[in-house]
Amino acid sequence: MDQRRLRCKELEEKVMSAEEAAQFIKPGMTVGTSGFTPAGYPKAVPLELAKRAENGEELKLTIMTGASVGPEIDARLAESGAMVRRYPYQTNGTSRKKINEGSVKYVDMHLSHSSQQIKAGFLGPVHVAIIEAVAITKDGGIVPSTSVGNSNIYVEKAEKVIVEINTSQPLELEGTHDIYDIPLPPHRKPIPLTKVDQRIGVPYIPCDPDKIVAIVETDITDKSRPVAPIDEISEKMAKNLIEFLSNEVKENRLPENLLPLQSGVGSVANAVLAGLANSPFEHLTVFSEVLQDSVFSLIDCGKVDFASGTSITLSPEKLETFPEDIKRFKDKIILRPQEISNNPGLARRLGVIAMNTALEVDIYGNVNSTHVSGTRMMNGIGGSGDFTRGGYLSIFTTASTAKGGAVSSIVPMVSHIDHTEHDTMVIVTEQGVADLRGLDPVERAECLIEKCAHPDYKDQLRGYLEEALQHKGKHTPHNLEKALSWYTRLAETGTMKES
Amino acid sequence: MDQRRLRCKELEEKVMSAEEAAQFIKPGMTVGTSGFTPAGYPKAVPLELAKRAENGEELKLTIMTGASVGPEIDARLAESGAMVRRYPYQTNGTSRKKINEGSVKYVDMHLSHSSQQIKAGFLGPVHVAIIEAVAITKDGGIVPSTSVGNSNIYVEKAEKVIVEINTSQPLELEGTHDIYDIPLPPHRKPIPLTKVDQRIGVPYIPCDPDKIVAIVETDITDKSRPVAPIDEISEKMAKNLIEFLSNEVKENRLPENLLPLQSGVGSVANAVLAGLANSPFEHLTVFSEVLQDSVFSLIDCGKVDFASGTSITLSPEKLETFPEDIKRFKDKIILRPQEISNNPGLARRLGVIAMNTALEVDIYGNVNSTHVSGTRMMNGIGGSGDFTRGGYLSIFTTASTAKGGAVSSIVPMVSHIDHTEHDTMVIVTEQGVADLRGLDPVERAECLIEKCAHPDYKDQLRGYLEEALQHKGKHTPHNLEKALSWYTRLAETGTMKES
Repeated sequence: MDQRRLRCKELEEKVMSAEEAAQFIKPGMTVGTSGFTPAGYPKAVPLELAKRAENGEELKLTIMTGASVGPEIDARLAESGAMVRRYPYQTNGTSRKKINEGSVKYVDMHLSHSSQQIKAGFLGPVHVAIIEAVAITKDGGIVPSTSVGNSNIYVEKAEKVIVEINTSQPLELEGTHDIYDIPLPPHRKPIPLTKVDQRIGVPYIPCDPDKIVAIVETDITDKSRPVAPIDEISEKMAKNLIEFLSNEVKENRLPENLLPLQSGVGSVANAVLAGLANSPFEHLTVFSEVLQDSVFSLIDCGKVDFASGTSITLSPEKLETFPEDIKRFKDKIILRPQEISNNPGLARRLGVIAMNTALEVDIYGNVNSTHVSGTRMMNGIGGSGDFTRGGYLSIFTTASTAKGGAVSSIVPMVSHIDHTEHDTMVIVTEQGVADLRGLDPVERAECLIEKCAHPDYKDQLRGYLEEALQHKGKHTPHNLEKALSWYTRLAETGTMKES
Repeated sequence: MDQRRLRCKELEEKVMSAEEAAQFIKPGMTVGTSGFTPAGYPKAVPLELAKRAENGEELKLTIMTGASVGPEIDARLAESGAMVRRYPYQTNGTSRKKINEGSVKYVDMHLSHSSQQIKAGFLGPVHVAIIEAVAITKDGGIVPSTSVGNSNIYVEKAEKVIVEINTSQPLELEGTHDIYDIPLPPHRKPIPLTKVDQRIGVPYIPCDPDKIVAIVETDITDKSRPVAPIDEISEKMAKNLIEFLSNEVKENRLPENLLPLQSGVGSVANAVLAGLANSPFEHLTVFSEVLQDSVFSLIDCGKVDFASGTSITLSPEKLETFPEDIKRFKDKIILRPQEISNNPGLARRLGVIAMNTALEVDIYGNVNSTHVSGTRMMNGIGGSGDFTRGGYLSIFTTASTAKGGAVSSIVPMVSHIDHTEHDTMVIVTEQGVADLRGLDPVERAECLIEKCAHPDYKDQLRGYLEEALQHKGKHTPHNLEKALSWYTRLAETGTMKES
């Protein structure tokens, strides 16, 4: 193997094929992998595990990651039946199907909680860690690739460590990572981070070389996904959100260069970040999980000074020039463990502006981020709760309708709650902005209906509120017989609209 | 006035009657007061405001506090119509009635969020602060009485400050407070606190003497409430909880002296703390909001080494000997601003064991802490969210039934959610302990039904789950037509039991 990639002499004898390395993983084990979004996750060894399962071996593995990973894990291991339990996040179509059939047990966690719960042993032992790396240092330190996620936790916690050295990942990534370990209580000290661009750790994951049982070379690329073009609705939402932020600056509730931005993944997030390129804001910073195309564009156009995250996930187009581009971006980005990138205490200290996507919002400001009609898992809560609860401002975006207008994203009572009324400050749709700060439940309902609901649903929502106000309990008025009727109507008639 | 109480010469001319001081408060103003539980809140000036409202003046005040306060504010100002809006917590019967009638607008907030949102101006200006104190230092520093709450925020933010020097509060309280200011982002540094007993601030609220417009002397006592005797159900819950903690120590997931304890207010909390007196645990510490009788008993019996909170609220019995007792407890307790006592980042750093009370829990682990049948406000979320989300362990206690068995506290879907499935680790009833860590929704449901539900409701809950599993979406199975039917049945038939 290339000596620039494997610098630890004593580990040379551990180099083996993916098939051999996969033999360390036995049925019933818990495997912790690198990866956060389809970036920096191991590919070669998981593919071998899938093959074993496809050949009839009953692997029944528990898979823990940073967040979502690529299809080599969440499609192949789910489809083959190798994976029976999954923590703490996923976005893959195949794993989603298995989860909603009930054949994969999925535990949807705050991503910053996953780190400490794994470390504390709340989720049981981690038998083997599989970590994608660009290099191993001479002391056995693992230099991650395009994400950090929970890799440092798995390396520490696992009995055995398998490293996939991926030669498709540029070695120039070395130096972008900042690994800082948080011990368990009662041994915790203040995390010294006070600025987005501050380095507080080391650029590799420290690892006792004796723990590394296998090193596998591979060149399978991150399975990046194209960025959806920005549609008219997303553009309107972005415009509304940026107007809101501008007004906060005008009212002296935000500094002129705002505060560190966190943004979820997806087309609205992309539209918002694209909108910032044409905004008057300058010297912006990003303190987020995932650094996508738009963040790099904002750095290139001089709007963003620095971006901190735990993962770089690029479109296929951007991925192509990444080995060259990383040289330019290297001193403008940091990748941190998700226990740091998603730390609610740091989000609060830095004063993050949290911008995340809601599936639906109810008139009292409760947000459903995860469950379609209350029962079917879409992706998971991811880091949205970490940033929403900890941030200075919490903003949720959603188009006011879905399914061609058959579904209203503003409903009387959401079918599942991920973010409560106590945590959601501002809701943005293409219709407008509902600033819920300081409003009581009935005021919130009036504001959300007037500012955010689609005109097709306003009367129906007003009707619900008026009727609910006739019932006992006028603080958060509800008619519990009808509160969830919009979903049953949708299931029966194909639309939430009253006939 | 006693020169030991008022040490700032230039402020002597500001001494006046409560009636005169109340004149600084004009209709439509926002008033920020001291107080957290019926402890350390101003009494004399609010009573004058109530009189004015009773005499027909339309005051329409917004009242912001630390948390709940005594009847001089939440009963008299609500009843008289002087108060039309209330932040961020209350527990009073009269204000509750007004809130549920819709005549007082109540915004129920995470108590640690209230501090920063007020400071950031998210809730508008604060015109006048009224702070109860035991003394004013020679530089105008305000020495709080039995609570700190948001007093430091109101003193900083308000245009004018009224101080009530309460001679019924022992001057010996001076030195128990530790006031530490957190600036707004982007100016925040790490809060240096790493141990429960650590002092990081000053023992008074710094205040420019020019800002103090009135000083009122009063001797109206804190309206403390008797502690309910511990019943059999609470005792069983406490026993179950302590067994759970003992097992965590055995499994090496907790140190032998546990981690700092946070406990909500009420009879179960009291039973748990009383149970600790007879437990094998030693050298315990408390990092909580409210220090009640039981905390002082645990200090006296040598079980608790140190307790940090933002308020001391005692039974009438304990209050009587408090001026003498405080001398003994003074070096074993600290009262901090609620932005520190309730800081989720500190709860996480210290590894707090959060123990709070649920009104009801659903089979998937979502907790309702606030709304009876989804619409009627009981008290509010208080600090439970701060500690639950930030803590190392999050535990909720509830009796398995209420209303003589007519209400099951374990239901298919809670009618309001304050703590989501992502945040609740352990549920304790008198029936047993459901350890939900690492379980997927269906496993959680099975565990909660078997371990925590009352035998009278187990079959009914199992029936709901089985039927829900026949529906689409087997990750979090629900039958949305029946999910809330337990409440409508209760309203119609007087019981949640199926006939």
